[in-house]
Order: sequence, then C-alpha cells, then structure tokens
Amino acid sequence: MGLIVQKFGGSSVANAERVMNVAKIVTDTYKQGNDVVVVVSAQGDTTDDLIAKAKEINTNATKREMDMLLASGEQISIALLAMAIQSLGFPVISLLGWQAGFSTNSVYSAARIKKVNTDRLKMELGNKKIVVVAGFQGLNDKEDITTLGRGGSDTSAVAIACALQADKCQIFTDVDGVYTADPRKVKNAKKLSEITYDEMLELATLGAQVLNNRSVEMAKKYNIALEVISSLNPIPGTIVKEVAKMEKMLVRGVTKDTDVARISIVGLTDVPGIAFKIFSKLAANNINVDIILQSVGRNNTKDIAFTVSKDNAPVAIEALRALPFVDEDLPIECDTDVAKVSVVGAGMETHPGTAS
Amino acid sequence: MGLIVQKFGGSSVANAERVMNVAKIVTDTYKQGNDVVVVVSAQGDTTDDLIAKAKEINTNATKREMDMLLASGEQISIALLAMAIQSLGFPVISLLGWQAGFSTNSVYSAARIKKVNTDRLKMELGNKKIVVVAGFQGLNDKEDITTLGRGGSDTSAVAIACALQADKCQIFTDVDGVYTADPRKVKNAKKLSEITYDEMLELATLGAQVLNNRSVEMAKKYNIALEVISSLNPIPGTIVKEVAKMEKMLVRGVTKDTDVARISIVGLTDVPGIAFKIFSKLAANNINVDIILQSVGRNNTKDIAFTVSKDNAPVAIEALRALPFVDEDLPIECDTDVAKVSVVGAGMETHPGTAS
Repeated sequence: MGLIVQKFGGSSVANAERVMNVAKIVTDTYKQGNDVVVVVSAQGDTTDDLIAKAKEINTNATKREMDMLLASGEQISIALLAMAIQSLGFPVISLLGWQAGFSTNSVYSAARIKKVNTDRLKMELGNKKIVVVAGFQGLNDKEDITTLGRGGSDTSAVAIACALQADKCQIFTDVDGVYTADPRKVKNAKKLSEITYDEMLELATLGAQVLNNRSVEMAKKYNIALEVISSLNPIPGTIVKEVAKMEKMLVRGVTKDTDVARISIVGLTDVPGIAFKIFSKLAANNINVDIILQSVGRNNTKDIAFTVSKDNAPVAIEALRALPFVDEDLPIECDTDVAKVSVVGAGMETHPGTAS
Repeated sequence: MGLIVQKFGGSSVANAERVMNVAKIVTDTYKQGNDVVVVVSAQGDTTDDLIAKAKEINTNATKREMDMLLASGEQISIALLAMAIQSLGFPVISLLGWQAGFSTNSVYSAARIKKVNTDRLKMELGNKKIVVVAGFQGLNDKEDITTLGRGGSDTSAVAIACALQADKCQIFTDVDGVYTADPRKVKNAKKLSEITYDEMLELATLGAQVLNNRSVEMAKKYNIALEVISSLNPIPGTIVKEVAKMEKMLVRGVTKDTDVARISIVGLTDVPGIAFKIFSKLAANNINVDIILQSVGRNNTKDIAFTVSKDNAPVAIEALRALPFVDEDLPIECDTDVAKVSVVGAGMETHPGTAS
C-alpha cells in the first residue's frame, strides 16, 4: 500500500481496447489499496495527425499555437481513460496539466516545469479518487498552455511522483524493461532487473529510447524509484534507483547512435590555439561536437576529426571554411556512413580488460 | 470601425480550405479598422467523432468527463484558425473558454454562463490582436471544464458581445440569412433583411435552426444587434434587433416541427379537475405538453387531445393508463404521423384575416 504514479505512453492508449487494458492495470493497483495517479500521453498517432493538420495551414506557426493545438491530444486520452475506469466501477477524475498544478516557464514546445502545486491532486486523492493527469503539458505565468517537449509525459509523471513523494513511479511502455542492448537487434540481449540512475542516464544520452534524461535526472535528485515495465506483458520490469545490485556485470548496456557525421580536417598547420579557434567557431554556430580526435601529422601539421549530428554537418563545414587559417585547398572530409557504439557500466572504470 | 464579434460554426471550419476562408473574412474585417473577436466551434464532425470514441469505451460516462473530452474539439479549431490568421500576416492569439473568462455553473453538458471576465480579452484587443475564442466551453467554480450544450458557440459569441458591449455580433452559418420558410423546402421563401428579437425567438422555438434561443434572449436583454450571415456567400445577411422595418409583411416566417405525437383520450367522464389531474401526471413524468385540445363528447363525456415529442409518447401513454379514472377499455389513441406548422409574425395579432 502506498502512493504509486503510473505513466502510459501513446501506444499504450492507442485505441479503445488498449485504453481498457490500461484501466485494468490502474484499477488492479488501486484495488491493492494504493493511491494511484496515472499520467497519459496523447493516443497513438494523434500528435502526428495534429501536426499534419497544422502544416496544411501554416508551416511556420508560432510555438504558442502549436502547444495550444497539441495539448488537445492528452485532453482526449485522459477523458477516455477516466471513462474506461468509470466503466469498471471505480471513482476517478481526469485533470489537465494546469488543473494538476503544472507551472512551467514560457519556452513553448520545450517548457521546463517550475513547480507542481499539489493542492488539487491531494484533494482528489483524499477523496479516494484515481487521478488521471494529462502528461506533456502545463501553464506558464501568462496562463497560456505550454508543452514540455520530447519525453514530456515521462517528465510529468516523475515530477508528480517527486512533488507527492510517491513510493514508486512506473513508466509503462511497449518494452518490458531496460536491456543490455536493443533486443530487436541483439538476440541475446539481457533484461536488467535493476540499474542505477547514472547508468540509465548514460544509456539515455547515448540513444536508448526507453526513458528520457530529464525524467531520470529528476528522479535521481528526489530519489524516486522508477520502474520501466510493459503495459502488455505483466512481468516485473527494470527498477532504476540509486544503488543497484551489481549482478557481477561489468557492462550494463550497449547502444548505438547512427545520427553521426565525422568531419576531418587533414594537414592543418600546428599553431597553439588552433583547436580552440575551431571549436569556438562551431560553438558560435550552435553546433554540438561529440567525440574529438586529434593526431599529429607530417611536417608540423596535425589532423583534427570530430563528430556532429548529421543535420549539423553542412553548417559545420561552412563554418570551418570561413576560418581565416583554413586554406581553400585544405581537405575537409565528411563521412556520414558512421555510427557511434557505446558501452555503459560502472564496472568499466574499475575493471581493466572490459574494453577488450 | 468598432468592435465586432464573429462566430463560425463547425461546417465553416471543417477543413484547411474552410479555415483559410474564415481567416480571410476575419482579417478583412480587421483591416477595415475593427477590433475583432472570433468565436469558433469544433471542426465539422469532430464532436460526433469524439462522442463515438467515448461510446466505444463507456456508454454511460459522467457528463464531467464528456465535457473534458468534447472541449478538446474547439481547442483544435482555435489553434488552427490562429495559425491560418498568422499565415496571412496578422497578429492573433487563441484563447480557450476559461482563458477568455467564461465562468459557468456546474451543470455539465448544459452549463449556463454566470459571467464573462473580460480582462484577458481586453488586454489582447488592447495589444491589437485578433482574438480567437473557443466557443461552447467554460469553467465552473471547481475549476473544471464545462460545455454549454446545443448552440453553445452562438451563446458564447453573444455573451462576449454583451460583455464587451460590441457594436455587432455576426453569426456566420451555411445559410445566408433568416428566411420566411426553409428555403430547401419552400421554393419562393424570402430572405428577411431584418427581424425583431421576439420574432426570431418564436422562429427558433418553433424549429428554425438558424440561431438558438439562449443567444437571441441574451442579445435582446443587452440590446446587441445580431447578424445571421453566410461564411461562403459574401452578401448581407439578416439583422436581428429590437425594432425591425415592417416591410409590410404580416407573416415573418413559417416553420414546421415533425417531432410531434398526438395523443387522444376519447370519452372521459367529465368531472371537474380531470384535465388538471391528467396534465399533472404528465408533468410528474417530465413530459412537455405542447398543444392541448379539449372537446365535449356525448353523454357527459369529453375528449382530450394533446401533442408531445415523439419519444415521450410511450411514457405519456403509460402514465395515463396508470391513472385511477382511466378505465382499461378507455381508448387512448396515439398518432405519430402528424406535424406542427407555425406561422410567425408581429402582424398576426393585429391584422384579422392573416390566418386565412
């Protein structure tokens, strides 16, 4: 018995049957004597459909109006889920982001949560209601609707769990936990029963799409245990918490990122400060540089190679060409047929030989 | 130049092309130097689609959750219309019912407006913005979303016009004004250029579906001129106001209502108070009785006939049969193959011979 926050993504509520399935999971949790807050995303393709409708009218609409449009998606799913829970005979109420107390800053489409005022949530839980909350959305100081951007519903769920000091925050998805590698690609990938916040953060940063970073960081800060669990397969998922059992595993996971372009400048004259000038120029163009490799070349020259995301590559090359010390005939190579493979695990630091 | 409130129904914003058409009408009005508030309904079949989604999950959902669900429809259309207006290069902001200041009572799905707090509306108009408001919706004292029921967006538009003391409230529809009869059925029906509030009220009560009663009553109370006008055909519509030109017309319109059942009780023993008992019984069963006809029969009996709506007829007959003075073999006839035809016009009272 305790307070449990459950989050269901868009595919988990994609149609009437799935919504009923979620209602079953939620009410089972409630029947066990728990207080339950449920956070849901927009149904299946709703968000994409709404974006398509907008593009038909204006490809350059303000983000304020996009947020107004997109926030309707979660409004539909919370109402439908509340109706499904009612049909099973349980007390329930749906709340929009602002009704659930989400105050955000005014960065439309990528707002940050400033505060969750829990008065209404506590009142409804006090009335023994299952509370269904629209994820992904909040209200800024102007009383305008904002959305939290990618992975926003995860963030909403964790924020509520933190604000209410919930006993657990369960993130239901279409996978049944966190794996050592993508199980669709690696046959003998192993599901982890536990993982630390830091390991999860590294996996998320490196491209694992199970949980987004903001929600893991927030859960770490407030020490809220997260569980990544399947909405379709009722088996225990993966618990993300401060200290995880080591399970004698040095490597927690392997991820790959294919959105990588490697840019190489070969044969730069090696003057002190030249690398600083190059990376400052890229920073001025808002380009994130990931891996950097420098090597000494012949005749007092050096080669500098680095990776950026694919869509940043043309801008990066243009910026480099504009540098005064980059001669017109200096070769700048760009290779987009590369990927970054990352191996994650606390054991990597302490156990020699893991890399091999 | 002045303040104009324009209302567009669901068919006027049914798709991207229609939304752009509305944006054109609105911005043309704005370009003429007017302040403009636009009230819109949900797009085309959105409301019906949402109701169908709900029914798939729960045929008996609470009205609170239905209102939460349905209010998303106008949220989509205000955002899209604002985007369309942006694409034409005009300053605009969309507001949900509660953002536009609509306070209502708590009768979900048929809420009454208690107040329109105009602070935000005035602020946005002061910033020279076109303000796009979600019709049909408001917020109750519990800070829950409510909807206004049938014709709700008309009511929203007129309420804003009243609260802001607008110069005119234009109701755009798919007809180009108020006609003396349904132009789809009566070939030589004539469009009225003006009509009084009272005449419009009678026409609306009697089944003309151009404007709903609540909005006409409100406009009458605050003396706001209404214009019923086509969103597709740019010609002057019909003005509804306190005193209309008489145009030497005795009859303003003819309407018919086919949702009528005539119930007749033949040969009741004529005891004083028997009619009172019959209509009290019907009232106790929440049945609205419209036209009543009593006639004296033979042998100290009388016949009572009245009309009710078709779906009320079975309940009405059952209620009558339960009366102690209605013998089992007393004939109660029910005829559903009837219609009510109404002739409306201020001239009816004063000009003898109009009926003929």
